[in-house]
Amino acid sequence: MNAPTKNDIANAYCIVKQYAHCTPVLTSQSVNRILGCEAFFKCENFQKVGAFKFRGASNAVFNLPDELAKKGVCTHSSGNHAAALALAASLRGIPAYIVMPSNAPAIKRKAVEGYGAKIFTCESTQEAREKELERVQSETGATFIHPYENFDVICGQGTASLELLQEVNDLQTIITPVGGGGLFSGTLIYTKETHPSIEVYAGEPLNADDAFRSLRDGVLYPSINPNTIADGLRTSLCPLTLSIIQKYTDGIFTVTEEAIVDAMRLVWERMKIIIEPSSAVPVAAIMQNREVFEGKKVGIIVSGGNVDVEKLPF
Amino acid sequence: MNAPTKNDIANAYCIVKQYAHCTPVLTSQSVNRILGCEAFFKCENFQKVGAFKFRGASNAVFNLPDELAKKGVCTHSSGNHAAALALAASLRGIPAYIVMPSNAPAIKRKAVEGYGAKIFTCESTQEAREKELERVQSETGATFIHPYENFDVICGQGTASLELLQEVNDLQTIITPVGGGGLFSGTLIYTKETHPSIEVYAGEPLNADDAFRSLRDGVLYPSINPNTIADGLRTSLCPLTLSIIQKYTDGIFTVTEEAIVDAMRLVWERMKIIIEPSSAVPVAAIMQNREVFEGKKVGIIVSGGNVDVEKLPF
Repeated sequence: MNAPTKNDIANAYCIVKQYAHCTPVLTSQSVNRILGCEAFFKCENFQKVGAFKFRGASNAVFNLPDELAKKGVCTHSSGNHAAALALAASLRGIPAYIVMPSNAPAIKRKAVEGYGAKIFTCESTQEAREKELERVQSETGATFIHPYENFDVICGQGTASLELLQEVNDLQTIITPVGGGGLFSGTLIYTKETHPSIEVYAGEPLNADDAFRSLRDGVLYPSINPNTIADGLRTSLCPLTLSIIQKYTDGIFTVTEEAIVDAMRLVWERMKIIIEPSSAVPVAAIMQNREVFEGKKVGIIVSGGNVDVEKLPF
Repeated sequence: MNAPTKNDIANAYCIVKQYAHCTPVLTSQSVNRILGCEAFFKCENFQKVGAFKFRGASNAVFNLPDELAKKGVCTHSSGNHAAALALAASLRGIPAYIVMPSNAPAIKRKAVEGYGAKIFTCESTQEAREKELERVQSETGATFIHPYENFDVICGQGTASLELLQEVNDLQTIITPVGGGGLFSGTLIYTKETHPSIEVYAGEPLNADDAFRSLRDGVLYPSINPNTIADGLRTSLCPLTLSIIQKYTDGIFTVTEEAIVDAMRLVWERMKIIIEPSSAVPVAAIMQNREVFEGKKVGIIVSGGNVDVEKLPF
């Protein structure tokens, strides 16, 4: 699979902007004081389905040729991509088939059902997911939209940084979370190909540090049942996202579970916005690497806000 | 005390806008579907100190003549007004003395201390508050800024509706919470004197329904130790706010504690913003009085977002 370019992302935006919200960029003086930098939060927690994933999913769904589209789309996902694909499919009026692990948060399961998708439950291992998906695919003829190993999905995710760069001038740094690498690689491509001087980093849970190790060693390490509160970041990179990250990133910072919870609480209490643990990871990375970000204008892509309010880590 | 007019509120805005945020107005298609109307959330939870109270406090503090100001300001408050007055005083470089009940939420106490105010703790009865405040006042010579029985405070609170009306055209209804009535009466004056056709309502906890009963009977009933989760709405109207409410309002709706928690959860889950229980009261009022709001463009003043995340009602 070829890597997308900035032009592919600009083209994706022509589709994405028809369906997705142009999310607000929020700032907070008290958060700036605590982080020691000027932070611009690109609030994809306010995106449709509560996560940036809707950008990639809508781009993928609306790029499908009619004869494929009518058979529907399918995927396996721990949650946000599933909801995003379900909504995008319902907007195009085509079926969506979602394979979900049995341990997916209730709120995400409910959202997927609410968008009219058909859910197939499986065990939470990568193997079980893939096997069940294969079965669903062969039965329905639906097109598999991978959560990140997909050209159109990566292009869609890159449009969040496109909007951020349109709204905020003179950013010096951008940081995102990294799980499978769709958001991170889309952000890298668009930012580095349009503003080469901007540094682009990712934050990753120490307990799910496959991207950090893969980048360091130049080898694709799978993430095997990682134990992190950041449920959106338990997936592994794929060859395509690793190659984009290798080409462009300035680095990946790993953070502890405790730092993730502290950062999440900081944003909740000071900014009054609900962010999911995955979105607190880049904030934690800034707090633990002050020397890198000190005094700079930093864009933070807030990946999502889907949290089970009955199961908070505070 | 004379009641303010729309011109007083417009004048207050010349001061308030120098210090307060012009907060965003947020909308949500899924919330609209659930409420059965087109709702515009004026997000004072994103205001400085996390509540609309900063508008009134900053207007009162910056309107003080120098010779009074230098002796400082004082008040008693369960929380948001205290933090607001503390911040406004620190911005003007004058002392603030705050009498707080011993049962005030920890997060609000911490905020007040963070702004450099001096705190005096007392029992949570109205009598104990007033007695302690009198003592502080006579000791320091500070000017008492009442949380709502104050001309400048009411004018400041009215500026939230001024901004809302500037941003959203063709509103048919506005609804706020009502506790002491500062926000409600400021909203009533500005809205009814500039857009007489807009209906203006308040939501009030059934367990603290002094405003509802006072309006119904034309008598000022005190609110005696009311038991409601909406901690910002436990106070009673004063003669000034009651007279403004009598003159202008289209009605007050009371809501149960259960409805408040349901509405709070709805906003948290669907809009990904943190609102305090008091701010969920108008949303609950809409949900329980659909026939009044159905199909209309409704402005909702979200009063604040100060919640102790360790003590959530979910």
